[in-house]
Amino acid sequence: MLAEGIGSLFLFTTVIGSGIMAERLSGGNVAIALLGNSLATGAILFVLITMLGAISGAHFNPAVTLVARLRGEIDTRAALTHVVAQLAGGILGVWIAHFMFDLALWQLSEKLRAGPGQWAGEAVATFGLIFTILGTVRMRPQWVPPTVALYIIAAYWFTSSTSFANPAITIARSLSNSFAGIAPSSVPAFIMAQLAGALAANAVSQMLFSPFPHEASQ
Amino acid sequence: MLAEGIGSLFLFTTVIGSGIMAERLSGGNVAIALLGNSLATGAILFVLITMLGAISGAHFNPAVTLVARLRGEIDTRAALTHVVAQLAGGILGVWIAHFMFDLALWQLSEKLRAGPGQWAGEAVATFGLIFTILGTVRMRPQWVPPTVALYIIAAYWFTSSTSFANPAITIARSLSNSFAGIAPSSVPAFIMAQLAGALAANAVSQMLFSPFPHEASQ
Amino acid sequence: MLAEGIGSLFLFTTVIGSGIMAERLSGGNVAIALLGNSLATGAILFVLITMLGAISGAHFNPAVTLVARLRGEIDTRAALTHVVAQLAGGILGVWIAHFMFDLALWQLSEKLRAGPGQWAGEAVATFGLIFTILGTVRMRPQWVPPTVALYIIAAYWFTSSTSFANPAITIARSLSNSFAGIAPSSVPAFIMAQLAGALAANAVSQMLFSPFPHEASQ
Amino acid sequence: MLAEGIGSLFLFTTVIGSGIMAERLSGGNVAIALLGNSLATGAILFVLITMLGAISGAHFNPAVTLVARLRGEIDTRAALTHVVAQLAGGILGVWIAHFMFDLALWQLSEKLRAGPGQWAGEAVATFGLIFTILGTVRMRPQWVPPTVALYIIAAYWFTSSTSFANPAITIARSLSNSFAGIAPSSVPAFIMAQLAGALAANAVSQMLFSPFPHEASQ
Repeated sequence: MLAEGIGSLFLFTTVIGSGIMAERLSGGNVAIALLGNSLATGAILFVLITMLGAISGAHFNPAVTLVARLRGEIDTRAALTHVVAQLAGGILGVWIAHFMFDLALWQLSEKLRAGPGQWAGEAVATFGLIFTILGTVRMRPQWVPPTVALYIIAAYWFTSSTSFANPAITIARSLSNSFAGIAPSSVPAFIMAQLAGALAANAVSQMLFSPFPHEASQ
Repeated sequence: MLAEGIGSLFLFTTVIGSGIMAERLSGGNVAIALLGNSLATGAILFVLITMLGAISGAHFNPAVTLVARLRGEIDTRAALTHVVAQLAGGILGVWIAHFMFDLALWQLSEKLRAGPGQWAGEAVATFGLIFTILGTVRMRPQWVPPTVALYIIAAYWFTSSTSFANPAITIARSLSNSFAGIAPSSVPAFIMAQLAGALAANAVSQMLFSPFPHEASQ
Repeated sequence: MLAEGIGSLFLFTTVIGSGIMAERLSGGNVAIALLGNSLATGAILFVLITMLGAISGAHFNPAVTLVARLRGEIDTRAALTHVVAQLAGGILGVWIAHFMFDLALWQLSEKLRAGPGQWAGEAVATFGLIFTILGTVRMRPQWVPPTVALYIIAAYWFTSSTSFANPAITIARSLSNSFAGIAPSSVPAFIMAQLAGALAANAVSQMLFSPFPHEASQ
Repeated sequence: MLAEGIGSLFLFTTVIGSGIMAERLSGGNVAIALLGNSLATGAILFVLITMLGAISGAHFNPAVTLVARLRGEIDTRAALTHVVAQLAGGILGVWIAHFMFDLALWQLSEKLRAGPGQWAGEAVATFGLIFTILGTVRMRPQWVPPTVALYIIAAYWFTSSTSFANPAITIARSLSNSFAGIAPSSVPAFIMAQLAGALAANAVSQMLFSPFPHEASQ
């Protein structure tokens, strides 16, 4: 639980902090801001999964924890503890980012993010994230840190929503009125799209990465 | 076939989606757009090849499938199935990108790309891609994901055509009137240049990466 | 000691030199300058740790040396030698950067960096650096070069202070009136925040990466 | 020899081609151009060294070949053949880049690059390159592709000369009046600085990476 909390704290601090930094420095060129924001997020994901993956699984994401529960990899109690740690660590991470950048700790985002395109973006982004995790764990488990990191860098760019793909981060980002924020009213639809994408990815992955046919291929 | 289709879908969604995102955000600075577009494409290639390489070979590219067929690694039926999956998955990927960005699904590009310089670009780019794949498979097979990803990032920058290097993606990109598009009338010459580059790379690689002299060197 | 000195020299030359280069070329867009500066710093860290890690530990950082001493990995004399080499090599590195860019060798920075937000940034940044090193050494030691490099890239972006996270580099950067500089009067508070972060990370890491429970997990 | 020639061809095509592309697209922001140019160069180096390292050593650089000769790793005839292949492949690579971008094949650069700062830059850059190669070959040989690639990315940014660090590429770049060019009159001093840096690195590396004391450390 400590691992999951500290990991979420650093992940969310990075997402929010690099977003604030990028927005401040980029002189209004949002593509440059997104370069900094996406590289920083991918970089910290590689670090955190490498260190913490063998301790807590390095989920940092309720959608990942849900799929792990559905696959019977963890029990319900551990799953709930994970989600609590993700939210607590994550929100603390947002406040640390605000404090470092001399901003009010408590904020609510006013950035509306809605519409079928953005919801499809979240469903596709979360589908891809779960698919990446399950596929890499199955085919080349030692390479999970780079695949997850690089997947998120790509997804920041290829989805219209810049790929939240994480219900805990969606909630935490609603508490930051910055580059990376999302208005609270936009949160529920994002989370529903994320969970739909996660469940679909779990189903497809069971077809594609079944344990038997490739058993001896590694 | 499912692996090849889903992989092509995510690859092509990334190419088109990150192109649209980069164009929208970059304020007219095309070099910044190309940074985002090339990093996202390289990142997703690393992910997809790591996951799917052991299942379908992770071609996502008829030029790669053609060379695999010529080398006797797959039979004609599998090759045709691969190409169908690449085109179907890829075009679906383009439409998903359009839907996420609230654009009309059905588009035809108006971006003419032609001339000896660009055709040479495609021939060189595809030569390099096939050469990279065959060379890495021969010398250090576990590093195919990073070499292919990094080769494509380099080739986006060193060729005048930004390195399509893939007949399926050339066709799919003709269906998107965006940053990454290509006018349908420019497609046939691009594909011919790509196939010429692929065949030349296969010939050179047979000289350089022959199976016998280095057999014991790994 | 030679390894620690040469490593610090190249690291500090890179931090200062790439800062000067980035500032000169970026036309006032600081986010672009930070992209160049952070990528160059991360890249050289990967190189230096890969080469020199097995010789000197590749600390290049008195905060890292302090923690190594506290954990009993080196004795007091080796620790002091390390810090002397870091400072001597590092300051020489700053002067080499100045010479290469036709600047006066001896400079004092006029760039004030202070306030609770920046001090919190240094504490968080150094906490994360030590946590990354101890965690990766414990869980996946062969991956220390990429985790440290990527952590620093992320931390340049997510902290308000752009993450010095190193007392020697803080002193050396006070001798450069450039993009990467820091006024001498701002140095003591930065170093105190860094050491506080380092000590806290050592304590948390002892809880999380204890040697016994995961002993057989690698 | 074929490996060395084709590798130099692709390396030099990338250096020149990505320089032209970056200059054309960056709207005058040279830092953005250098980001594209440095990432493309690093990426192709990783690819070429991974593939060709076990065949020819993947020098692509007379300074590297000179050091390999001094250390007795290759004989004089092989060294001369390498240098001829590097120059022939490299100049052909420049012409291919020019052809792809619809430029005159034969050009002479008018970009003067001179002065103690730039010469020091070349000496430091080449010192670091040889030091990186010898150190990584000695301590962690399977990681030569990423260390050389990342070293060059860093060196593009931390040296005032953007780190040619290669006599063959210096000659080849004198034949391109583009972003990456160098006036012929500036070439001899650059090459002398490069060779001085290479010889110094060889001497220091023999002290630091001696074969005996660490023999059992890997």
